[in-house]
Amino acid sequence: MKKSVGIIGANGYTGSELVRLLAFHPNVELKFLFSRSNSGVKISDLYPDLESVCDLVLTNEISQTDILFLCLPHKASQNWLNENLISDDTLIIDLGNDFRLEGEFKNRNFIYGLPEIYFDELRNAKSIANPGCFATAIQLAMLPLAKENLLKDIYTTGITGSTGAGQSLQPTTHFTWRNDNVSAYKTLNHQHVDEILKQINSLNNQELELNFVPWRGNFARGIFTTSIISCDLELEKIYALYKDFYKDSSFVKISEKQIDMKQIVNTNFCVIQIEKQDNKIAVHSAIDNLLKGASGQAVQNMNIANGWEQNLGLNLKPLAF
Amino acid sequence: MKKSVGIIGANGYTGSELVRLLAFHPNVELKFLFSRSNSGVKISDLYPDLESVCDLVLTNEISQTDILFLCLPHKASQNWLNENLISDDTLIIDLGNDFRLEGEFKNRNFIYGLPEIYFDELRNAKSIANPGCFATAIQLAMLPLAKENLLKDIYTTGITGSTGAGQSLQPTTHFTWRNDNVSAYKTLNHQHVDEILKQINSLNNQELELNFVPWRGNFARGIFTTSIISCDLELEKIYALYKDFYKDSSFVKISEKQIDMKQIVNTNFCVIQIEKQDNKIAVHSAIDNLLKGASGQAVQNMNIANGWEQNLGLNLKPLAF
Amino acid sequence: MKKSVGIIGANGYTGSELVRLLAFHPNVELKFLFSRSNSGVKISDLYPDLESVCDLVLTNEISQTDILFLCLPHKASQNWLNENLISDDTLIIDLGNDFRLEGEFKNRNFIYGLPEIYFDELRNAKSIANPGCFATAIQLAMLPLAKENLLKDIYTTGITGSTGAGQSLQPTTHFTWRNDNVSAYKTLNHQHVDEILKQINSLNNQELELNFVPWRGNFARGIFTTSIISCDLELEKIYALYKDFYKDSSFVKISEKQIDMKQIVNTNFCVIQIEKQDNKIAVHSAIDNLLKGASGQAVQNMNIANGWEQNLGLNLKPLAF
Amino acid sequence: MKKSVGIIGANGYTGSELVRLLAFHPNVELKFLFSRSNSGVKISDLYPDLESVCDLVLTNEISQTDILFLCLPHKASQNWLNENLISDDTLIIDLGNDFRLEGEFKNRNFIYGLPEIYFDELRNAKSIANPGCFATAIQLAMLPLAKENLLKDIYTTGITGSTGAGQSLQPTTHFTWRNDNVSAYKTLNHQHVDEILKQINSLNNQELELNFVPWRGNFARGIFTTSIISCDLELEKIYALYKDFYKDSSFVKISEKQIDMKQIVNTNFCVIQIEKQDNKIAVHSAIDNLLKGASGQAVQNMNIANGWEQNLGLNLKPLAF
Repeated sequence: MKKSVGIIGANGYTGSELVRLLAFHPNVELKFLFSRSNSGVKISDLYPDLESVCDLVLTNEISQTDILFLCLPHKASQNWLNENLISDDTLIIDLGNDFRLEGEFKNRNFIYGLPEIYFDELRNAKSIANPGCFATAIQLAMLPLAKENLLKDIYTTGITGSTGAGQSLQPTTHFTWRNDNVSAYKTLNHQHVDEILKQINSLNNQELELNFVPWRGNFARGIFTTSIISCDLELEKIYALYKDFYKDSSFVKISEKQIDMKQIVNTNFCVIQIEKQDNKIAVHSAIDNLLKGASGQAVQNMNIANGWEQNLGLNLKPLAF
Repeated sequence: MKKSVGIIGANGYTGSELVRLLAFHPNVELKFLFSRSNSGVKISDLYPDLESVCDLVLTNEISQTDILFLCLPHKASQNWLNENLISDDTLIIDLGNDFRLEGEFKNRNFIYGLPEIYFDELRNAKSIANPGCFATAIQLAMLPLAKENLLKDIYTTGITGSTGAGQSLQPTTHFTWRNDNVSAYKTLNHQHVDEILKQINSLNNQELELNFVPWRGNFARGIFTTSIISCDLELEKIYALYKDFYKDSSFVKISEKQIDMKQIVNTNFCVIQIEKQDNKIAVHSAIDNLLKGASGQAVQNMNIANGWEQNLGLNLKPLAF
Repeated sequence: MKKSVGIIGANGYTGSELVRLLAFHPNVELKFLFSRSNSGVKISDLYPDLESVCDLVLTNEISQTDILFLCLPHKASQNWLNENLISDDTLIIDLGNDFRLEGEFKNRNFIYGLPEIYFDELRNAKSIANPGCFATAIQLAMLPLAKENLLKDIYTTGITGSTGAGQSLQPTTHFTWRNDNVSAYKTLNHQHVDEILKQINSLNNQELELNFVPWRGNFARGIFTTSIISCDLELEKIYALYKDFYKDSSFVKISEKQIDMKQIVNTNFCVIQIEKQDNKIAVHSAIDNLLKGASGQAVQNMNIANGWEQNLGLNLKPLAF
Repeated sequence: MKKSVGIIGANGYTGSELVRLLAFHPNVELKFLFSRSNSGVKISDLYPDLESVCDLVLTNEISQTDILFLCLPHKASQNWLNENLISDDTLIIDLGNDFRLEGEFKNRNFIYGLPEIYFDELRNAKSIANPGCFATAIQLAMLPLAKENLLKDIYTTGITGSTGAGQSLQPTTHFTWRNDNVSAYKTLNHQHVDEILKQINSLNNQELELNFVPWRGNFARGIFTTSIISCDLELEKIYALYKDFYKDSSFVKISEKQIDMKQIVNTNFCVIQIEKQDNKIAVHSAIDNLLKGASGQAVQNMNIANGWEQNLGLNLKPLAF
């Protein structure tokens, strides 16, 4: 029997992307899509790609479900959980950043939803804090080194698509401005730095700096990052570490060939490549910010918490072109 | 038990797109991928998105399969079938244009693979000529009028993505040239015109002109067309005709709201909208040229010919953004 | 001595593009940039490309100048001229559509600013109605046929960049939506149709229909149009007509080779190509919507009205790539 | 009287961009355009934007000119100069990388053509080695710190347009591949690193590392770079250093507001912004790779060497949108 699902904030990018994934998921059934601002509107009127895929009407009333996804603006999840009574039996997966640094909230304990390090904790979890998009891409690129205590100070540049900025109309999401353009934002103080360092520093036994500069790219989907680190290990041993670390991971691919961002767009994969020159290595990683960076990873976490195959509903045809 | 599948010309865009679709299809198993030029190479080395999705090695030897897709350059399928012996029991689906105008070839009779008009003939067919991409988009936009004998001369402009031009490197597929650019090609003499007129004139009882100008667009996937026709019927009656004509079609959506091309990218859908001013109507249609315009429709035809649900393996997550 | 120039509505796309052109024009000096909404702000704070090119501060006070450009929303120019007293000696060039169909206003008579037909009237004109962007591209493609009374009903599709939609934030100018997308708008009822027909019907001695469907393209600058018309004349004779009609035009190029939109981006040129099949011709034309389609043509008109060389300040380096 | 100019390799991107610039330059006249592979072809047949701008025919014969630009593949300039006799009076500007690291060649001494440090040497120079595109963007971002001996190890990511890869057809310049894509190349070993370090280390009195990872961007023109460096100086003092260093530079703009790449596209400007967090600074810089990064800077150098105003022929209308 299918599990019932509700989505809070279904009218945004990550909420609607969950609808796209769950509409074809064999083990769940979408029961309600909650949106305060668009209550009464069909989700397919907001996102016409969903016509004949999901024709649910957005509602401002919640009902009890087996699984609940929160797709709210950052810092809004706590308020929402304070104002709404959710059964202790409901699996809550929060896609915001409310519980990533501090998981304790009321009688719940949110597990950080990066399956590549917390798979065991996520099995049977009832509360999951889904990681940030850049946080996912950068951590997956750094974890094998951190685990071996080989990480030093990190210098990272990342570029993200316009969906990372949400659906609100802003000067930096105007097509005329963004087309053929690149720019930096939140230079050296992006909110994901703390989220990344919390995990990395718990593995690595010395404190590190993460110098991270995010760029806005002129594409809609995808994240590409390059991190430069001092490292004396030979490249083939580094590759061996990475391959071993991810040997059981369904969605992390280690490549010895040149990677490009588009190879993972519209999939839940993360692809990682490492290059070395003298005593420096550069680790490249790429994800789809809305999938492995948000809604895809949320479904992966849902699968794990329910004891299902990780890739259930996530065998997505790559866009490729 | 799964049916076995071979793909001839698997190294091209439509061939590799078939691999993406069939890798997750529940009723078939990819048995071999044939390529003369890339024999011995892993398909995922050509298309890195396929890594861990399909790791078959391209081969220049064929073996007998239940189903065979031909993804060869136009006019190469006949030669290939002359040179290779294929069992009469094998379902052959040709994605080229060799058998679209004339289906009789040796002891086979290729059915034109547009399920919206030939569904019955496609059931149990052993030979299918898969339609062209523009031909699909324009026919689906015109068929309901043709059937009612309401079609007059047609004035159509269509725009297509760079995947329509194939993977060969050409001046007009160079990024520097094509980015932010639009241009026309094969003006008023595109090879799909005859293919379209053959079907339309068989329904409509007077001969029509199709004045079609295709444009090159600065995107990789998708086709958008607008056709202008004289028509005295009221708009709501026209919509009623279209909805009735497509009432059993899994993949054609009739929209009374403004459509846009991206709403169907990475899906097998065709979406159609009609607008009217005085005695003229404009019919807009959009498809993904590699899916409903090629490999997706080929899978749909395979499903029909095998008596399976049409949408098996075609419940694709829309790209949306 | 340089002529003084004021720009009303300098904070928009066409106003700022005028600043870019006039900052380097040898015969004029920018005296003031008027903007109600951004008064007190440096123009280069709104458009950082203008830093060190033009550092004027937007003002809400006007002063008398030799030349005045109105870059206001459509229908706002009449109000503005009713509320502000402008000397009869001032050359007024209106970039809106207030005076294109009816040039008489108070004691002024606006000349339609298409130099390819009204060059003589524009010399010494004091009031000029600058044509619309699509109107310029389509008229230039049709005028030589109209003059010879060879025009029949016209079927035109045009595609335009996002700058055509202005700088306001709208769902259809959101990068996430528009990137890789195409859609139609104002199907068969664009406001430029009347503007075009007024000019064409005054040359052609029978009434015509213009069936025009504009599309939104995923680029920022440029317009490309294709018009299909019945025409029995041989192609070489048609080309001869076009070359003769434009033999004295500085900015119209007739090409017998395939044209593409980007070849004229960032220039004031219009490029036209003609193709023929049976008794139908397709005329392609391309302009930069902000230059020959707006601000560039306004400068060309200013040059003509002052008796200067038409290309003064308009020898623009093409973007090319 | 105008100086005569010849361009060797005029059929490539940087050669044709020189044609675009020099066609409107008041002090020079294009005398010949040399191309071995396209001899006999009109330059405007290769680049249709040049039609009616420059209609010279490419030739494989050279004649003596006052000024000669070499726009050859890297390492081809030495061969060419060995095989062709050029008068000692001719100003030679080489856009390749043959003379950037070692300027002595035969009886000539190539001055490194970065006017922001070698302005005096470039006056009256007869041989100029024009800098690389990334080399220009990164040096301009680092020079003021180097001069004050404040530079430490540098961590730089840069992204470049497809014109940086030249006009040859390659898999990574295929539109289908590059559209919406990002990837790294020449990771930590780009050929410009030595060029940059040579200049920086001559100013800074300690040896530095430059860890540079270039990315391919999905746009045609432009370079954006971010460099992270340890620096204890307060931000306002850093800005003061930069503004002082560039106070006489015509084409370097120091911005305290967020910069974006497109603000300098189609201009000869470099724009630089600095941000600081704790003891790290990030310096962003942007140029048009074909202008300040190649042909524009070559014209600037030509102007300086002839004692003309630096911006002669370089007052280019920004693309802006």
